[in-house]
Amino acid sequence: MNPLDALVEQPVEWLRVSGPESDIVVSSRLRLARNLFGVPFLQKLENEQKVEVIETVEKAIRRSPRMKDAHYLKRAQLSELDLQFLLERHLISREHVEEKGEKAVAITSNEVVSLMVLEEDHLRLQAFQAGFSLMDTWRIINQIDDDLEKNLNYSFSASLGYLTACPTNVGTGLRASCMLHLPGLVLTKQVHKVLQALAKLNLTARGLYGEGTQATGNFFQFSNQTTLGQNEDEIIDNLAAVIRQVIEHEKEARRYLVEKKRVKFQDQVWRALGTLRSAHVISSTEATQLLSLVQLGLQLEILKGALTKQELNLLFLLIQPAHLQKLSRKALSAPERDIRRAELIRQKFQKISL
Amino acid sequence: MNPLDALVEQPVEWLRVSGPESDIVVSSRLRLARNLFGVPFLQKLENEQKVEVIETVEKAIRRSPRMKDAHYLKRAQLSELDLQFLLERHLISREHVEEKGEKAVAITSNEVVSLMVLEEDHLRLQAFQAGFSLMDTWRIINQIDDDLEKNLNYSFSASLGYLTACPTNVGTGLRASCMLHLPGLVLTKQVHKVLQALAKLNLTARGLYGEGTQATGNFFQFSNQTTLGQNEDEIIDNLAAVIRQVIEHEKEARRYLVEKKRVKFQDQVWRALGTLRSAHVISSTEATQLLSLVQLGLQLEILKGALTKQELNLLFLLIQPAHLQKLSRKALSAPERDIRRAELIRQKFQKISL
Repeated sequence: MNPLDALVEQPVEWLRVSGPESDIVVSSRLRLARNLFGVPFLQKLENEQKVEVIETVEKAIRRSPRMKDAHYLKRAQLSELDLQFLLERHLISREHVEEKGEKAVAITSNEVVSLMVLEEDHLRLQAFQAGFSLMDTWRIINQIDDDLEKNLNYSFSASLGYLTACPTNVGTGLRASCMLHLPGLVLTKQVHKVLQALAKLNLTARGLYGEGTQATGNFFQFSNQTTLGQNEDEIIDNLAAVIRQVIEHEKEARRYLVEKKRVKFQDQVWRALGTLRSAHVISSTEATQLLSLVQLGLQLEILKGALTKQELNLLFLLIQPAHLQKLSRKALSAPERDIRRAELIRQKFQKISL
Repeated sequence: MNPLDALVEQPVEWLRVSGPESDIVVSSRLRLARNLFGVPFLQKLENEQKVEVIETVEKAIRRSPRMKDAHYLKRAQLSELDLQFLLERHLISREHVEEKGEKAVAITSNEVVSLMVLEEDHLRLQAFQAGFSLMDTWRIINQIDDDLEKNLNYSFSASLGYLTACPTNVGTGLRASCMLHLPGLVLTKQVHKVLQALAKLNLTARGLYGEGTQATGNFFQFSNQTTLGQNEDEIIDNLAAVIRQVIEHEKEARRYLVEKKRVKFQDQVWRALGTLRSAHVISSTEATQLLSLVQLGLQLEILKGALTKQELNLLFLLIQPAHLQKLSRKALSAPERDIRRAELIRQKFQKISL
């Protein structure tokens, strides 16, 4: 049996547990880019060399106390659907899905840590935590990085730091990011101002699924742009300081909606719920947008009901194309998915009174 | 007590009963324009002359066997809200609402016949029947016209027929119209073709509230454009023949939706219902549009439920601004109405399971 199938109906741990400020910060993520010393960067790798890298990394993982029980899945074991499924769970990147040729991914059973092998760099190590937990996440990823480094020889320059395929990652190889849920700033039309300010601070905002996806809807992934010339603490502190400000703006926007725009806001939340309860055809974009409004309504007690945060978080995952197909145990075309998605959502919302 | 207040919570008779083809033809209406001999047209009338016309007509009504018990309401007895209320019930026209100065309206208790005094002409007599019933309606209005003519001296020319303030009404003074509910043609984007064809046949299509209102949404009032050179039977037959064709096109469009576009159509109907059940703020335009889809869904058995056609018809009326205010027994601003309307609709739809 495909080890991924067992994961379908449970949310990744960082969606299951609650973290600091988790009404606004969905998750914190750190990623380290590493390359093996003496092995060309991915672009120049022959197929056999790729296989060697995958095996070298596997050995290191099996010797690493915190990664030794991880699933290690190679390209041949992963269907297109599996790759899409892992992307929807943020365990791999869109680049890793699209990268041709040999590749692999290691995933710890709680899905807190994943290691992409042969994405843009030889290794892309990621760790997630629920809520606004960058320092916790840093401790986790740093320990695993140290573990792996005992068994892997990384490309490192005393003057530049870790060497990476793309110059923006040279140095620490660290990208720190937080996934923010900012419906308040979107509804009060302030989000563009926030995104413009970010750009000036050398931070970027992306959509739900990382690089190359637009920051549409109410979810935004904020991360540092470059890593050279800053140490890890500086990168994290810098991002955290900005996120803290964005959290305050979002809280203020939410207060404004509840206090000053209550009638209209209530109408928007209830209409979203009404559509989710009634639609017979719905895209994942629309469903995500409407679920976001319902989540905000629950958080601000415009809606009160038996729907837990965990159930709602799971639903955000289950409505994604690959999850929907895994759940249905068959391939579904896009129009079939839109019908199945609407059915699933109606079922979930019929059970609960709000 | 205002005699109109008793009418608020009941639909006009032609919405209460069922008529031929009433899934598509909401109502048939005939209107006769008449002017008093020896009295100038409205534009040239002094105030005292207007008062005289109103009294002359009142006497004739009281002597008419079929109109003698009608409410006869003069301008001073009618608030702005009353006028709006009568307009929403199609008992008077927008022109009659807006006309400055003295005016009156007679309404039979079942609201089948109304007589506007000093609208564009001295007399505008109207009769309504449910469904596609032009000939029945003609018999009703013709009898009342004959009754009134025994006590009123009409401006009539042997060569031109009845003389009217506007040349388009000269001749029979007859306007025949049917209110059609054409959601099938709207959803299948064929309605513009139908409207273009109508224009060539010297027929016009207007919106729910007559002249000057746009034919938006799913309701269209089809009527003859001119009356000169045709007798009453020709005018009615001509309109009826066209309506019969439109009915066939609408039926075909509905079949197409159910058979070929079922999934999408079902989605549209259910979303409309979901929004009606959930919205906390809703305009009359949006509510009418959504109720129209729900009505179509019930007619085509996409929805099945305890909501009767009569209850739904009543709701179309009750959500209108003046009805909403009469129902609430107080004046409501437009934003207050949007909230009250949403509340009323939620109440109606919560009671019924669909």
